[in-house]
Amino acid sequence: MDKVKETAKKIRTMEIRGAGRIAKAAAEAIRDYAAGLEAASMEEFSSSIQEVSSFLISTRPTAVSLPNAVKLASRYSSGNVEEARQEIIKNANIFIERADRALEKIGQIGSRRIQDGDVIMTHCNSHAALSIITTAFKDGKKISVIATESRPRRQGLLTIRHLNGFGIPTTLIVDSAVRYYMKDVDKVIVGADAIAANGALVNKIGTSQLALAAHEARKSFMVAAETFKFSPGTIVGNPIEIEERAADEVVDPAIIADLSHVQVKNPAFDFTPAEYIDMIVTDIGIIPPAMAYTVIKDHLGWEVEEI
Amino acid sequence: MDKVKETAKKIRTMEIRGAGRIAKAAAEAIRDYAAGLEAASMEEFSSSIQEVSSFLISTRPTAVSLPNAVKLASRYSSGNVEEARQEIIKNANIFIERADRALEKIGQIGSRRIQDGDVIMTHCNSHAALSIITTAFKDGKKISVIATESRPRRQGLLTIRHLNGFGIPTTLIVDSAVRYYMKDVDKVIVGADAIAANGALVNKIGTSQLALAAHEARKSFMVAAETFKFSPGTIVGNPIEIEERAADEVVDPAIIADLSHVQVKNPAFDFTPAEYIDMIVTDIGIIPPAMAYTVIKDHLGWEVEEI
Amino acid sequence: MDKVKETAKKIRTMEIRGAGRIAKAAAEAIRDYAAGLEAASMEEFSSSIQEVSSFLISTRPTAVSLPNAVKLASRYSSGNVEEARQEIIKNANIFIERADRALEKIGQIGSRRIQDGDVIMTHCNSHAALSIITTAFKDGKKISVIATESRPRRQGLLTIRHLNGFGIPTTLIVDSAVRYYMKDVDKVIVGADAIAANGALVNKIGTSQLALAAHEARKSFMVAAETFKFSPGTIVGNPIEIEERAADEVVDPAIIADLSHVQVKNPAFDFTPAEYIDMIVTDIGIIPPAMAYTVIKDHLGWEVEEI
Amino acid sequence: MDKVKETAKKIRTMEIRGAGRIAKAAAEAIRDYAAGLEAASMEEFSSSIQEVSSFLISTRPTAVSLPNAVKLASRYSSGNVEEARQEIIKNANIFIERADRALEKIGQIGSRRIQDGDVIMTHCNSHAALSIITTAFKDGKKISVIATESRPRRQGLLTIRHLNGFGIPTTLIVDSAVRYYMKDVDKVIVGADAIAANGALVNKIGTSQLALAAHEARKSFMVAAETFKFSPGTIVGNPIEIEERAADEVVDPAIIADLSHVQVKNPAFDFTPAEYIDMIVTDIGIIPPAMAYTVIKDHLGWEVEEI
Amino acid sequence: MDKVKETAKKIRTMEIRGAGRIAKAAAEAIRDYAAGLEAASMEEFSSSIQEVSSFLISTRPTAVSLPNAVKLASRYSSGNVEEARQEIIKNANIFIERADRALEKIGQIGSRRIQDGDVIMTHCNSHAALSIITTAFKDGKKISVIATESRPRRQGLLTIRHLNGFGIPTTLIVDSAVRYYMKDVDKVIVGADAIAANGALVNKIGTSQLALAAHEARKSFMVAAETFKFSPGTIVGNPIEIEERAADEVVDPAIIADLSHVQVKNPAFDFTPAEYIDMIVTDIGIIPPAMAYTVIKDHLGWEVEEI
Amino acid sequence: MDKVKETAKKIRTMEIRGAGRIAKAAAEAIRDYAAGLEAASMEEFSSSIQEVSSFLISTRPTAVSLPNAVKLASRYSSGNVEEARQEIIKNANIFIERADRALEKIGQIGSRRIQDGDVIMTHCNSHAALSIITTAFKDGKKISVIATESRPRRQGLLTIRHLNGFGIPTTLIVDSAVRYYMKDVDKVIVGADAIAANGALVNKIGTSQLALAAHEARKSFMVAAETFKFSPGTIVGNPIEIEERAADEVVDPAIIADLSHVQVKNPAFDFTPAEYIDMIVTDIGIIPPAMAYTVIKDHLGWEVEEI
Repeated sequence: MDKVKETAKKIRTMEIRGAGRIAKAAAEAIRDYAAGLEAASMEEFSSSIQEVSSFLISTRPTAVSLPNAVKLASRYSSGNVEEARQEIIKNANIFIERADRALEKIGQIGSRRIQDGDVIMTHCNSHAALSIITTAFKDGKKISVIATESRPRRQGLLTIRHLNGFGIPTTLIVDSAVRYYMKDVDKVIVGADAIAANGALVNKIGTSQLALAAHEARKSFMVAAETFKFSPGTIVGNPIEIEERAADEVVDPAIIADLSHVQVKNPAFDFTPAEYIDMIVTDIGIIPPAMAYTVIKDHLGWEVEEI
Repeated sequence: MDKVKETAKKIRTMEIRGAGRIAKAAAEAIRDYAAGLEAASMEEFSSSIQEVSSFLISTRPTAVSLPNAVKLASRYSSGNVEEARQEIIKNANIFIERADRALEKIGQIGSRRIQDGDVIMTHCNSHAALSIITTAFKDGKKISVIATESRPRRQGLLTIRHLNGFGIPTTLIVDSAVRYYMKDVDKVIVGADAIAANGALVNKIGTSQLALAAHEARKSFMVAAETFKFSPGTIVGNPIEIEERAADEVVDPAIIADLSHVQVKNPAFDFTPAEYIDMIVTDIGIIPPAMAYTVIKDHLGWEVEEI
Repeated sequence: MDKVKETAKKIRTMEIRGAGRIAKAAAEAIRDYAAGLEAASMEEFSSSIQEVSSFLISTRPTAVSLPNAVKLASRYSSGNVEEARQEIIKNANIFIERADRALEKIGQIGSRRIQDGDVIMTHCNSHAALSIITTAFKDGKKISVIATESRPRRQGLLTIRHLNGFGIPTTLIVDSAVRYYMKDVDKVIVGADAIAANGALVNKIGTSQLALAAHEARKSFMVAAETFKFSPGTIVGNPIEIEERAADEVVDPAIIADLSHVQVKNPAFDFTPAEYIDMIVTDIGIIPPAMAYTVIKDHLGWEVEEI
Repeated sequence: MDKVKETAKKIRTMEIRGAGRIAKAAAEAIRDYAAGLEAASMEEFSSSIQEVSSFLISTRPTAVSLPNAVKLASRYSSGNVEEARQEIIKNANIFIERADRALEKIGQIGSRRIQDGDVIMTHCNSHAALSIITTAFKDGKKISVIATESRPRRQGLLTIRHLNGFGIPTTLIVDSAVRYYMKDVDKVIVGADAIAANGALVNKIGTSQLALAAHEARKSFMVAAETFKFSPGTIVGNPIEIEERAADEVVDPAIIADLSHVQVKNPAFDFTPAEYIDMIVTDIGIIPPAMAYTVIKDHLGWEVEEI
Repeated sequence: MDKVKETAKKIRTMEIRGAGRIAKAAAEAIRDYAAGLEAASMEEFSSSIQEVSSFLISTRPTAVSLPNAVKLASRYSSGNVEEARQEIIKNANIFIERADRALEKIGQIGSRRIQDGDVIMTHCNSHAALSIITTAFKDGKKISVIATESRPRRQGLLTIRHLNGFGIPTTLIVDSAVRYYMKDVDKVIVGADAIAANGALVNKIGTSQLALAAHEARKSFMVAAETFKFSPGTIVGNPIEIEERAADEVVDPAIIADLSHVQVKNPAFDFTPAEYIDMIVTDIGIIPPAMAYTVIKDHLGWEVEEI
Repeated sequence: MDKVKETAKKIRTMEIRGAGRIAKAAAEAIRDYAAGLEAASMEEFSSSIQEVSSFLISTRPTAVSLPNAVKLASRYSSGNVEEARQEIIKNANIFIERADRALEKIGQIGSRRIQDGDVIMTHCNSHAALSIITTAFKDGKKISVIATESRPRRQGLLTIRHLNGFGIPTTLIVDSAVRYYMKDVDKVIVGADAIAANGALVNKIGTSQLALAAHEARKSFMVAAETFKFSPGTIVGNPIEIEERAADEVVDPAIIADLSHVQVKNPAFDFTPAEYIDMIVTDIGIIPPAMAYTVIKDHLGWEVEEI
């Protein structure tokens, strides 16, 4: 339990951050806890596992990969303690291995959709989206990329550095220039913070503007997302909260210190409706956004009752 | 002629800048030149005025207000030198006075469209758009404003300071948040660098994204533009060139110095199609964008043959 | 002046009502006033005509046909009292005659757009729209009509009676069934209370729903409107106020008497954006909505300065 | 069998009406019939259950909840009469219990999507839609409602009375005012008479106009529907018939008695295409309309062959 | 009069065909008739000119350039026979000269809108559209063309031969491939058979499919049209009839001889709504489609009363 | 194995062609091979079946029905050679029987969606689409058909002959007239060459133009497709290649022989996005396009890992 608490603390303090790392840490914590759990009866085993699962999930309620990892890692069907323990260890390891390979699989699958000569626009700095782009380039496709600055935190600077490392020709633009350059774009590829039951995408602020402009010009809009990004809570109506970040990311406080009628708003994410998304590239293949409910129910294994 | 050359130099070196100031300086130059012009015959007078007009227009070919000012200021119908001179002086003064009052008139006209409680989004730092907003506020309408940062030059910081001076509640957002906040917006008001014969708007990069998002949510999109912003050259097909500005406005050169596969693109303006514009508020009233040709032909007085 | 006051009173008390009748009464009042006006000088004549014009216009500020009638009827260019008087008499009579013939002309022009077999949907009870429909039927075109009930005042019952009088096969539907029947419709024809400078239509509540459903199914949406329905005030930004009518038109007060948390809203008109209007059939021909500014300026003769 | 016949008669004569009540009555009838069924063999048992099922379904072919209830209540897998009987009793009771709780669950799930300050538009008088609204209000969210009159039968009057009982601020409007008020609306919530395999909604006439206007303004359009509203027959192409109701609901027969060219059309329902529906709130969670086939096949258990 | 009759006969028998040739022949006929007309009085002169004008217009009622040519060529204001004769001769010559230069001017104006590298799609075989394309190529712009086959008469084969003569790289596709290739297109340029008062375009069957596909992908859709293509009759509602051509253009009669249930439909033209047209390139400059009424009234000089 | 090779050869040389015939031939080949396979161990049996399966699939990689047939026909779960053999024989026979009945079932299901009086547009010559049309006609529905010529290969001539044989009133039009006649159409029904994981349709060039025009006018667009047309490879991103056919199908080589700047492009198929498809009529019922992934995974039985 100490190790579980340690993991939980690291997740809470954001020492462990990023959907994938959180997911794996949680699965490992469950696995190791189950491996060492001394239980006199199946009831005791069950209730301990249940308790630890709930505890882990509660450490960062907004991290959608956390309940998915705990759910998939803590499954067992046997009524025998030893067998159940082995099931958990096996399921946790399967989850961890799949999570490890998810980015690679998304890269391979998405890369097949890229054509020689494609100009790809991307936003922010998504590992899954970049996996598709760099895989396609390594597969020999002559592509180029238009990367947005992604204010306020300018993650676009990470993206151009990453792509430059692969030798991929890349153009940096300000976020306001997205529609201006859309006529030159063949495909837009972005990542996902979360995907809701009705197929809506939650991602870095500005994503929905790329989607809208791509839709207007009928350019393909692809989302790259590991299946643990699908939000089980949305099935029962839980809204996905949009984090409001500090004003000083947007403007130096000194500049607005004396502007008493001015406030700054800095939402970290926005919503992209399913109708603007052509496909979601996941580790279990390409799906339309309307399949989100099925992914949550059949692939992640959630029942409405337990959410 | 010395004074004309001096004015021309100031326009060329951008000592005189801004559509309105350029227009007035050119009209004054024509007026003063005509006032002092010694001409032995009407032919001489005509050819001198023509020469000076062409010279002034050539000093900054991309400034749409320049030919309009010269055209309207240099009109005369008389065949008598002295009468023609007086006509030019009168027409130049009329133009100057109207240009002086244009922002105020646009403010008055546009203000009547604003309703109590309106949330207005604006982009960059347009004097004409701000004239509408501040006039409405001074008229007692309880409004608030959402101002975009307007990367790369962040003219939004000028806008929030300007609005704060009037005591108007203002929210600053990054350009990527335009669509996210559109649901809370009642009207979008932007300025114009130029308006083409088919009603398309040329304005600060990002304007077309506000227009697209406003259209998507059926929010009113108003353009505030003096009539001298309507581009006569577009009637005969001359394209409006989009200025490409320095990369260092977007990113510190040091950051990308070693990124050999990365380039920066920094267009200053974009195009907004007429179908996304609900109305243009001008000094001669509210018009739909499809009236641009009529404004250029009937109000500004251009004939196809002379462009 | 007594007769002018009498006319003004009748307009104010709505003894004279309807855009056409108001317009004609005002033109007659101006004409008769000018005919009997004793003026020692042109200045006196001018100021008297100006005064009476303003007085008439002020009697019902929301009636768009009133300023148009006064404007067109009170025009004169001569500097001689007697000539000016005759000009006014002539212009007033021209206006009255044109107003008299406007419905007939609209009927003739619009009828030519109707094809044999057309199913036409109409809303409320517009004389101009019905003029097109009945003219087409009298021209031998086998048409049928779908008429909406037009709650709350159910003017659809007037419409079906009117059409029945001509022997035109007519179907009555509730307002909620507009979209359901749109698939069977060839053209939608409605009237106008006012048309704004940017081509937007103000007409009976529900009109914009017909327009939206017609646009969705790409059915032709025609507006029938006399030119005196074009609103000069909208050029300078004056909003068109939507009349809020009594709640008891919607529901028997007894029914909601004890419902303390319930209110009733009963706006009489709504706005239809120009983009949903295929053409406006006027007494000066068929125009696209974007020509509204030109109609107000060139045909009705308004200058921005005088509004 | 007598009791089955009695239930069937009540359903046929509409003594039992409403999708939920019909569903429960049918499930009870199956259950009680199975409980008392004397069968010498499994063949006899099977054929009796089959016969009663078909008989019940045939009593009101247009009630979509009827086949779903019979299907779910009459399931058994055992080849033993006594076990099969117990399965049916159990499954019927599960169905009844779920049907009983469906409105409450829909209310809980949908309520989570409602935000403080939301203005919600609703049409007609849907128990499921009202369950979401009242649950949200009871959850402490400060909401208000715009309710349509819902001509011809004016079920809006029931809705405003119901909402008034909860103290929810409610505005009553005529159906023609739907688009006019859409700009003030945050979410539209309606019920469902049936949902087709391709996600299209069948609901009270006028529903598709709310959906179209919501789509135009990008407002959220939610459908509240128990899973037994999903129509199995639509999978194999059976059309959903739209009931044509009596003309006197629309207009007093006396008014049109002498109008020989006038007819009245009064369809009770209309179709809303899936693309205008953002989500369907069901007792098994929130789903996109494209999941309808899966609900019918996996949740309701229908195979194409047996429809 | 003999020469007028000869010209009329040639137009009627289609010996003279094509909008431009018809227009010029009619203007010449009017001019020469006026030049030789012996008239004892102005009344006689007027009625003779009127008679000949009507006669010429009646020879081919569907040729929109015919009334425009006659109208512009037969104008005079003087009340003196000799002066009126000279006015007609002058106006006819002006018309003829402008008609002669119209294609060249359209080419020059439109060419300025073409950018280096543009891929241009065109349909059928429009001289005005080809004038823009070849002028742009001659101006040194590296462009390429996608030409449709344009069934049934396959005028695309003329187009590719014409373009090949200039050395312009051209791709021939079937009409069904228009949307498939639209993603590679920068601009669509087509001609016009007629343009209606509300800005709608009548052109070769299939044109509206190019327009729709261009609109879908937000590619620029330009119409190249001489001003004499604007239809005056449409102002007063006259519909433009679509010619139905012979079935054997579509299919060898032998193939369908025994197919008694099969008919062939072969309309020569279709309608493109104004909202899909970005600009019309005319000999008086670039206009939006909504300016059609103004062109007909102000440029062509038609009054509603005289149509 | 000889027989397998023979079948493979016939598929490769296109002696066996058409999705259905290919599918059945492959299933028969697998079945007969399994029936005669002599295997000493389960390992040998498995690897032989695997080898033959791969060999068959490789004979024509672009035929989407081939891997689906092989997959469904070669399934077995037993670890015993004889049982596995019987499973394959049974599964192959089931597949063959279902494939045989698929067109009939699609006809029955789709026919129920057709209403008396419907005008149906179809493209090319799809057996599945025609099955719906002729079944509806045989069911007594008075329908008529508009058939496109379908250049370049003019399969429309086959379609009109086929429909004429049933006595169905049919109109033949050129492909350019699709949008012109869409206003008269109630439903569009086309076949499918393949359907991708995100619901996009691959079908005869021009199909997407029918879909776009139907969408524009809100006419129903139905796809008729056997389930073996759903492409498993698209789940993992494999693109569907569009066959480029010979230029001489489009134009006689002699005509373009001397046109050195002209090339001909002749793609056989195009893509229709899912959002333009109202429903897909399959042998397992009516589904929305978003269900494609589920069909591939659950009905056809493909796992991402094995593609």
